[in-house]
Parts: sequence; structure tokens; C-alpha cells
Amino acid sequence: MKQLTVGIDIGGTNTKFGIVNREGNVLYQGNIKTTEFAEFSDFFDAMATAIREGFNGLPQDSKVIGIGVGAANGNYYTGNIEHATNLRWKGVLPLAKMFTEEFDVPCILTNDANAAAVGEMIYGNARSMKDFVVITLGTGLGSGFVCGGVLLNGHHGIAGELGHTSVNPTGRYCNCGKRGCLETYVSATGIKRTVYKLLADHLELSELRGISFDNLNTKMITDAAHRGDVCANAAFEYTGRILGMKLAETVVHTDPEAIFLFGGLSQSRELIFKPTIRHMEANLMPVFRGKVKVLPSALENQTAPILGASSLVWDYFSKSAQPVGVN
Amino acid sequence: MKQLTVGIDIGGTNTKFGIVNREGNVLYQGNIKTTEFAEFSDFFDAMATAIREGFNGLPQDSKVIGIGVGAANGNYYTGNIEHATNLRWKGVLPLAKMFTEEFDVPCILTNDANAAAVGEMIYGNARSMKDFVVITLGTGLGSGFVCGGVLLNGHHGIAGELGHTSVNPTGRYCNCGKRGCLETYVSATGIKRTVYKLLADHLELSELRGISFDNLNTKMITDAAHRGDVCANAAFEYTGRILGMKLAETVVHTDPEAIFLFGGLSQSRELIFKPTIRHMEANLMPVFRGKVKVLPSALENQTAPILGASSLVWDYFSKSAQPVGVN
Repeated sequence: MKQLTVGIDIGGTNTKFGIVNREGNVLYQGNIKTTEFAEFSDFFDAMATAIREGFNGLPQDSKVIGIGVGAANGNYYTGNIEHATNLRWKGVLPLAKMFTEEFDVPCILTNDANAAAVGEMIYGNARSMKDFVVITLGTGLGSGFVCGGVLLNGHHGIAGELGHTSVNPTGRYCNCGKRGCLETYVSATGIKRTVYKLLADHLELSELRGISFDNLNTKMITDAAHRGDVCANAAFEYTGRILGMKLAETVVHTDPEAIFLFGGLSQSRELIFKPTIRHMEANLMPVFRGKVKVLPSALENQTAPILGASSLVWDYFSKSAQPVGVN
Repeated sequence: MKQLTVGIDIGGTNTKFGIVNREGNVLYQGNIKTTEFAEFSDFFDAMATAIREGFNGLPQDSKVIGIGVGAANGNYYTGNIEHATNLRWKGVLPLAKMFTEEFDVPCILTNDANAAAVGEMIYGNARSMKDFVVITLGTGLGSGFVCGGVLLNGHHGIAGELGHTSVNPTGRYCNCGKRGCLETYVSATGIKRTVYKLLADHLELSELRGISFDNLNTKMITDAAHRGDVCANAAFEYTGRILGMKLAETVVHTDPEAIFLFGGLSQSRELIFKPTIRHMEANLMPVFRGKVKVLPSALENQTAPILGASSLVWDYFSKSAQPVGVN
């Protein structure tokens, strides 16, 4: 009997899901519009129907053993999506319980960055590692910690909110209500804000002067940097400096073997990795220097969020003890 | 058969040890001068002799099942003291291996702040907790993390160096070689430096103007603050502000239930706790506000370091799996 898992990534716009085998091959893939459903129960029913459609085409000798879900504000302990700011449905949504009742298999929910961390451990570049951090660089900055081979959830189930460490207490306004949070500098949005700050402060010509804030994206900044645009290159240097300084702080907390950069901004490769590593090393406590790797994720493709979510199930079954958070 | 453990705290000046039962009662206690021995092997022999003397007086039906040692630069994984800056003996000292060979019981070594964290879990105020942080405020600032009920050691065995997070990259010089590290502000030495800075910058009368830097200590600053000394009170406010801001960063890393303050400076109670809690709350990511307790350690007495070290053995035997770091 071939064991399979379902991985679901609930995003603000799209919800992607896939049926995945232990080797990380996605055997079936689907997608529904998250925004299309005014009621959470309608969204859930549509998901359940779509997943059952996927089951129809599976080999006879296979069996789905669990469902993993990555979602912003997903709480591992409760199995609930709690007060998500990027979804239409407010309050507490008992997603894991509903999936377990619907499909009679365990459902493991966590936030998207934690799912990425477990995905890296099960399928990715952290397969031989027990202590590492994954930083997801998307619209915001998320993070997932694995310590001693175990995903760090924390007491309230919300560990790893590195996007909300402080760069400057009187700095940029953040969606969380504070000012100067790391994600206002280091994220797809953060680097846009930095470009605009640089264009405001300096006189250099830049091809980015012709692009509105709403239209500007990481790819444009990356392409401009490759063409030698001074402002675009300065924006990457600035972003990497701040990320490197903050990673030096994270290292002295949990002493990881490696830090993986995942998602949009990390795909600018050298442009972001070089200044990040240089400034991390310069700011590290000397005993850690040269010891902590900063690496790209191995899951950089369209199916990464699905793999990350599905890996939660393999991680669950690999544990000898019953973990918390499974409904 | 009554089980007992030996707890040893190796400090730069004194090495204290005790024989401890499961309830945390110290049945026998001893002390040798760390500084007296030019050779590490002589120190070790003196320790072994002193411990054997302690064994003589134990009840007939008791048995020592292990030795726990807390020491700066103690590495849990290797059982070695590695390149300690506060000891006469340089290089790598295979302490755990030597104790195991001498007494034929497991010896667990870790740094003093980690020992304090395990002590808090076994004997102290964290007995019902699985996720917490202990901050030791002595000459420097140490920290130990317990996550999911397990001491966080990290990949290189040196997790929890919060004393070397950055307050100001161009700030005070630190023994580690960097500038502006947290422990240059928040520690017994840090608050002295702050008092001197305040005396230099301001004009207020202060009883502390009559005391040399070398003679000044935390108790004098505490007593002056209680008498209404403006400078002493400002020094506690400044110290608590910096500690509170940095604890807000730590909270978003590991999401603890509580943070315990331990050692010298924490004994100034309200003077340090009040500003620390106020500034931590003000700087916390909103989702964490009001959720994380800042508490005094329950181990504030002369035997605390011995209890912390001895608790490593109970922690070791309470685990179902064989942990790393036991020789």
C-alpha cells in the first residue's frame, strides 16, 4: 500500500493543494480561489469536493494517510486559523477538526513559514539537519525554526515571528501596529519601500524612476540591478545589510546550522545573499563566525507550498510520541 | 535506595559543589578555590577528593547516580569546557569524560545559564512549564532556553547567547570583541557603566558621585535608588528599558510562556522588573501583549548554582531517549 498525503496552502488569493508521495512528487494538483467564497463553510465544501476529485485518479494500491495545511495565522496546537488578517472569514476557524471529520485522517495545520521549514526538513536542503531556520521572503517576512529536529511552536503556538523584530522603533509603519519591524525593510514590499526612499533621498538617474509604487515589483528591481542601476543595487545592499544584522541576532538565540532563504526576494540570488552573508558575519558574536550557513531553499518552485504543507503529515507520523495540535 | 546527584558550579573564582536529593535539598556542600590551581589536572584531583569526602557522610541506603556541571563555555554536546576566558586553563578541557571515568556515573556539562534554566524546570518556578527563558544577570548576561520541555542547545552547543545581541553597533565595548552588546548595558557591570555615563552627562547631585568605578556595585545602586537618588533610579529605568526592548525581540523568536530573571541584578526586584516589563510590553508585537510573564527565579539563594547543575542529571534520567553530550 503506497502512502500519500494531501498538502494544502491557503493564501489570501488562491488556495493550492496537491496529493504528494513520500518522495515529494505531486501526483495531483488543484487550485481554488480563496476570495470567491463569502462563507467559510462554502470554501471548505469546495475544497473537500476538489480533493475528492483528486482521489479518483489515484493508483488502486494507494492510501491518503493525512492532510497538512499551511495558512497564515494557522495555530498548530488548536488546529484553528485564528483571526487571519488576509482572509475574508473572521474569528476562529476550526479547519483541522473539519478536515479530520470529513476525511477521517489526521489534519495538521500550521502557519505557512512553519510549513516551509518542515518541508525543507522532509524534502529539501535540511534533510540532514536538526537545527535550522527558514526565512520566507514574500509580501511580508515569515520564519520557521527547527530545533533538535523538532518544529518550534512556542507556548501560544506562534513562535518564529521574526518579521516583527525591531530594526528601528521610530521607523516604517507596519501592518502589525508597530513601527520599524524587520518585514517593513526585508520583504517584497520592504525593498519597494527602500527603492522609493533611495529615489527620494538621492539624485542618481534610475530606470525605476519611471515606475509607480503600485507597479514596482522585486523582478523589476532585480533586472535593473543586473543592468547596473545604482539605486536598485543600493536597495539590495541596504536590504541585505538589515537582514544580515538581524540574522546575527537570531543566530545567538538558537545556534542554527543553517539559515535558508525562501520565496520571492530570495530568487534574486547573489544580489540578496551576498550582502546578507557579509553583514551577518560582520555582526556575529565572534564564536559563531564562519559557522552558520546561509543557503537557498531547495523548494523554490510552484509546488513548494504544497510540499511544505504535505510534509507536516510525514513529520507527524515520524514522531514516536503523539504531538499536540492534531485533531 | 535513595537516589542523589552531585551539582558542581565552576566559577572563575570559586567552585561550589553539593550532593542533592530529588526534592532539591542539599545534603552536603563544599567549596574550593578555582584560582588556586595552575594545572587543570590538579584542580580536577582536588574536586574528586572533596566530592569523595562528601560521599562518606551520606545515608547507607543512598546512591549518587550522576554528576551535573555548570561552567561558562561548557559544551553540552562534547562534555568539554572550551576556551574559557574566565579560567586559568586554556584550550579544551574534557571535564565530563574525566568525571565519568573517576566516578563511573554519567556527567552532564553545560554552561551556567543553561544549568539555571534546567534548575528552574526541575526545582523552581518553571516546574509546570515547557517553553520559557532564564536570563542570568551577573557580571555578564547569560540565557538558557527551554522549548517544548527540552533545553535548547543548538547545532554547535552554544545556543542562548543573548548577552551578545546588539543594542547599538557603535556602542559600548564588549569582551567578546564586538560593540554595543546587550550585556554591556544589562548586567552588574552594565548598570555600573550606565551610572557612570549618567554622572558624566548630568548635573544632579548623587551619593554615587563619591564611589569609584571599581568599588561601585549593584547593591549600592539599589540602596541609593531606594533612598531616592535620581541617578540610581535613572540607571534602573535605562537598564530596564534596554532589557525590555530586547526581551520583546526574544519573545517573537521562541514564544515563551515566561521569562525568568536570575542572579545579582534581578535581586533589585521592582527596580528592575517594573521598567523591564513596561518596555517589553510597549515593544512587543501586539499579538503577544499581555501573554508573556516576566518572573523572578525561585532559585535565588546561595545553593542555586549547585541546584541548577545537579538538575542536569535528573533531566538526563527523565528522558526516554539517550541525549547527546553524555560521556
